[in-house]
Amino acid sequence: MSNDVVNFNAGPATLPRPALERARAELLDFDHTGISVLEHSHRGKEYEALHDHTIALLRKLMGISDDYHVLFMQGGATAQFAFLPMNVLRPGESADYVVTGNWAKKAVSEGKHYGNLRVAATTEDGGSFKRIPKPEELKLEASARYVHITTNNTIMGTQWHWLPDTSGVPLVADMSSDILSTPIDVSKFDLVYAGAQKNIGPSGVTIVIAKKAFLEGANTNMAKVFQYAEVAKANSLLNTIPTFGIYLIRNVLEHLDQRGGVPAIEKHNREKAALLYDAIDEDPAYFTCPVAKEDRSLMNPVFRLPNEELEAAMVSEAKDAGFIGIKGHRSVGGLRVSMYNAMTREGVARFVEWMKQFATAHPA
Amino acid sequence: MSNDVVNFNAGPATLPRPALERARAELLDFDHTGISVLEHSHRGKEYEALHDHTIALLRKLMGISDDYHVLFMQGGATAQFAFLPMNVLRPGESADYVVTGNWAKKAVSEGKHYGNLRVAATTEDGGSFKRIPKPEELKLEASARYVHITTNNTIMGTQWHWLPDTSGVPLVADMSSDILSTPIDVSKFDLVYAGAQKNIGPSGVTIVIAKKAFLEGANTNMAKVFQYAEVAKANSLLNTIPTFGIYLIRNVLEHLDQRGGVPAIEKHNREKAALLYDAIDEDPAYFTCPVAKEDRSLMNPVFRLPNEELEAAMVSEAKDAGFIGIKGHRSVGGLRVSMYNAMTREGVARFVEWMKQFATAHPA
Repeated sequence: MSNDVVNFNAGPATLPRPALERARAELLDFDHTGISVLEHSHRGKEYEALHDHTIALLRKLMGISDDYHVLFMQGGATAQFAFLPMNVLRPGESADYVVTGNWAKKAVSEGKHYGNLRVAATTEDGGSFKRIPKPEELKLEASARYVHITTNNTIMGTQWHWLPDTSGVPLVADMSSDILSTPIDVSKFDLVYAGAQKNIGPSGVTIVIAKKAFLEGANTNMAKVFQYAEVAKANSLLNTIPTFGIYLIRNVLEHLDQRGGVPAIEKHNREKAALLYDAIDEDPAYFTCPVAKEDRSLMNPVFRLPNEELEAAMVSEAKDAGFIGIKGHRSVGGLRVSMYNAMTREGVARFVEWMKQFATAHPA
Repeated sequence: MSNDVVNFNAGPATLPRPALERARAELLDFDHTGISVLEHSHRGKEYEALHDHTIALLRKLMGISDDYHVLFMQGGATAQFAFLPMNVLRPGESADYVVTGNWAKKAVSEGKHYGNLRVAATTEDGGSFKRIPKPEELKLEASARYVHITTNNTIMGTQWHWLPDTSGVPLVADMSSDILSTPIDVSKFDLVYAGAQKNIGPSGVTIVIAKKAFLEGANTNMAKVFQYAEVAKANSLLNTIPTFGIYLIRNVLEHLDQRGGVPAIEKHNREKAALLYDAIDEDPAYFTCPVAKEDRSLMNPVFRLPNEELEAAMVSEAKDAGFIGIKGHRSVGGLRVSMYNAMTREGVARFVEWMKQFATAHPA
């Protein structure tokens, strides 16, 4: 993040300044090889060392055991919506999806070409989603191949703060917008996927963490590059990988590790979210958070002002004041202040101060 | 390319030095926005301008008419091996593949999950491919949905220097390793695809140039992110795109444009290839080019030395002398000197001088 602009983009998003500065410093000469990391062969020993080190860092930071593969794939979470059922749903099987936002809906609509996907619960209400379901609302099938959840709903501003009891059915999660933001017990999941462009690095790389046992008996009648097991067998080097993306992920993960890892970043993330939510709650006549309090996202707080004219004015004046990316998603309107790991507390504090001044200057 | 190391990697490969220097100069501040291009939203106007400009540059450099879509996709040529038949082969239809190397073979083996792919010709001979077929060897079906060729065979060191007469059947080409290296008449093709990591930019972006009429009636029973028509409808922004990859492609294409475009780079490429092939042909007792002379690649010249011990010594001593990436692909052995657009004539000239000295110092 620049010292002048505070970037609240929802993703691609702010990256840790030291990770970018390091990239700049060594852009023309990677690891004293005389050439850019962008020019290294993905089959060379220099890239291979970087690749394996990046996977080891992710394993360390998330506590991923050897029972799991850690894969780099392409196509974003959107391609995973298809790859997941394509790989693991066998004829006659079905999977349960808990629908808590636009991305969860897309996981169903894109994935249904590849198998029988059931909506086990939805919190859609008048075109919007304002909460995570209650445990008793989940209509899970004991015979389901897996249960799919979206742990953080970037557009809606909600987040799962508990895990559903699936009675032994494998749990799969799209963690694109909250991976690495808070400690999770990976052993509770059979598969986790996440686009890198929020908490991990740049766009163009997808992380997949897959329990080896979950992939047993997976389908093979498809191109190898779509098969988790084949990608795993090749250590994610089945074909040419986005090498610069992996390089930048390495920079981000090393920085996270130096900051104290996921427990330290969680504390930081909770402090940032509290700054914003407290400001909202202190002035309920002016600021409204439309989502259930217990389901509020630590990553993407959303809020409304008394009317849409004020919201438009806030977006515009915020930009002039150096705060960019606060416009809510076009499908829901309002304001959204994304604060992934790389967002500084100082950036949020400055914005909160500014937004209070805005409220004073623009009474409803 | 560094001033000291000459990088003959086959891809990811040498990038134009000015494109990398520009990336370094503006890595922390894109277009005076105060944030990195890596931190910009793919939905923001700054990225959108970059995106559209990059497509316009490619259209200009390749002479691509409005009858064609220009798409950015993910997954490399390897994913295209599947996407192509998945999109355009309808039940009962077949496609003809001309197999001239390992990548063409993979196009068939990966694609055959999605339709009836016929091998219309192959030049495989004892596990290797040393030539492009003669026109009379092509057993093309008049009813085929398309004919697929691989215009340059990176591993084998061969290249098509003519186009097959398909009698009106749409021609599709994997141009991963020679796109933009020589002028082509795009109107002769119905679809062209290419991984970016050789002549276009970094790994992680695939270019697809598709005739609009060719996609009419394409299959839709698949995830949208795999559908050419859906990606086109969204101007390649169906989901989060590898924004930094597109940015670097912009830098490479602007540099190419400033150098005089594709006609100028072709002249340069022919001069470089002549330097190397002339040195080989001048000393036939020591250097052997295993491929048919009329099919020699301008991008990836391959050659053999009198024995494998000398080849291993050349790879090792070349590295010490600052020439990296000259080892032939593991499947064929020997030497390979990849010289994409960004390789300088001076780099090739220095290598040719050095390789003659090697021959003198290491008589067979």
